[in-house]
Amino acid sequence: MYSVPEITGATRLVGIVADPIAHVRTPQSLNRLFAVRGIDAVMVPMHVPSAYLASWFAGLRRIGNLDGIVATVPHKEAIAALCDDLGPEARLVGAANVVRRAPDGRMIGEMFDGRGFVGGLRSQGIDPAGHRVLLIGAGGAAAAIAFALAAAGVAHLTIANRTAVKAEKLANRVATAFPGVAVDAGDPDPRGCSLVVNGTSLGLKPDDPLPVRVERLEGAAIVAEVVMQPARTALLEAAAGMGCRMHEGFHMLEAQLALLAEFLTASDLPVPTTAQPNL
Amino acid sequence: MYSVPEITGATRLVGIVADPIAHVRTPQSLNRLFAVRGIDAVMVPMHVPSAYLASWFAGLRRIGNLDGIVATVPHKEAIAALCDDLGPEARLVGAANVVRRAPDGRMIGEMFDGRGFVGGLRSQGIDPAGHRVLLIGAGGAAAAIAFALAAAGVAHLTIANRTAVKAEKLANRVATAFPGVAVDAGDPDPRGCSLVVNGTSLGLKPDDPLPVRVERLEGAAIVAEVVMQPARTALLEAAAGMGCRMHEGFHMLEAQLALLAEFLTASDLPVPTTAQPNL
Repeated sequence: MYSVPEITGATRLVGIVADPIAHVRTPQSLNRLFAVRGIDAVMVPMHVPSAYLASWFAGLRRIGNLDGIVATVPHKEAIAALCDDLGPEARLVGAANVVRRAPDGRMIGEMFDGRGFVGGLRSQGIDPAGHRVLLIGAGGAAAAIAFALAAAGVAHLTIANRTAVKAEKLANRVATAFPGVAVDAGDPDPRGCSLVVNGTSLGLKPDDPLPVRVERLEGAAIVAEVVMQPARTALLEAAAGMGCRMHEGFHMLEAQLALLAEFLTASDLPVPTTAQPNL
Repeated sequence: MYSVPEITGATRLVGIVADPIAHVRTPQSLNRLFAVRGIDAVMVPMHVPSAYLASWFAGLRRIGNLDGIVATVPHKEAIAALCDDLGPEARLVGAANVVRRAPDGRMIGEMFDGRGFVGGLRSQGIDPAGHRVLLIGAGGAAAAIAFALAAAGVAHLTIANRTAVKAEKLANRVATAFPGVAVDAGDPDPRGCSLVVNGTSLGLKPDDPLPVRVERLEGAAIVAEVVMQPARTALLEAAAGMGCRMHEGFHMLEAQLALLAEFLTASDLPVPTTAQPNL
């Protein structure tokens, strides 16, 4: 039980959209940050299935006291396509994890998962530069992490995804943006990798399969999660059993909370002026 | 500063829609009630102008964890027209101040302002039976109050509205529903009235004109408000100056809070089965 300030008619509104929704941790963390900073805003969960995302989003524009929305699984790519404009990272990645509502109702998406993930590693003393990385997934969060790890100077990046063609496309895009980094698509086989990242939602449900062939993990490897609930996923537990260092999913959220709060509530942020988002 | 329990991904959502919004008091009161009853739900304000009500409402249906919406000025009549079905009081009055979202996305409106207003009078020891009443306004709240006062057995009811034809229509509808009560439309002249009710939003803004010709108030009269902010409107202050008893607007809200909470959060309420939802 943590207390948030009283909600009044003057309180600004922020949503988080997901499907499912009950596991998200962002409301607790962001509302705490709002309270600490004296920002009269509140984040509430909104459970919206993919089929209804567009009509929900159209209605959302009409709420004058809405500052914006944080988007998570499975909506990060779809919501970027609904935005009127995208910030530079969302445009690069092709997905958004936050949408700011401008006072005129325009919706501006941005993607902080990449900076959040790398910032989370650094907050734990882990510099991704020079690492040989296996990244599982090619959805919104995984794509953001792929670009951010490339920007942070990893030595090699292998992207493994259930739908292989999606991994190949993402690998090509990252390689084009960062020609100095060796990027390929491959299997979820962690042999030879010093940093293994689960960038999918596998691990959220108790009966999910392991996203990585854990029996091939090397003992010196770091195994990192984006799944936040449970804090220690089956993957992390298995990795610990192999002697690996665990890096929990909440670090990615913690490292981007301030970015999210500033993006959502700063009224004087420059609004990108591009006509068409280029996905 | 009042504390509400922590908002999590599992928290149910309730909105209040109004234009303007900053003055509403329902979030404070309803969130306190939710906390006291251990209901994991939170009410947040949504500022929506009339022109956008329909598109906002269409998006709202898509939020799976939304229990419903409280509607206030100026949306009580318009939102009733957007609902898939109405409870008996909303149907009688032609307006709704609360909408429950059924699990399938159907929206069911009901109107508790009438019961709230009369319940608020009774909570202060005032029985409206036998009173000669001047009611100002013919919008959603005023209409609900007109029907409820007639049902409570007032001796005479005069309805005064800026647009006179709207007062005449409402007076005819109330007279038809309650043939034993003398109902007419007239001027905002309180001579001969023992209960004077402001059922408009006049008094919310500092420069609003007085809704009643206060110099003609009789000293024995009770003057009642629906405006809650400020608690003592210019009308109430003027009435007190004439020796009248004041009845503040928050009583109408307090007397219907439990009704609102039960209507919004009870999953076992019978859902009216009329027709097709306009999904």
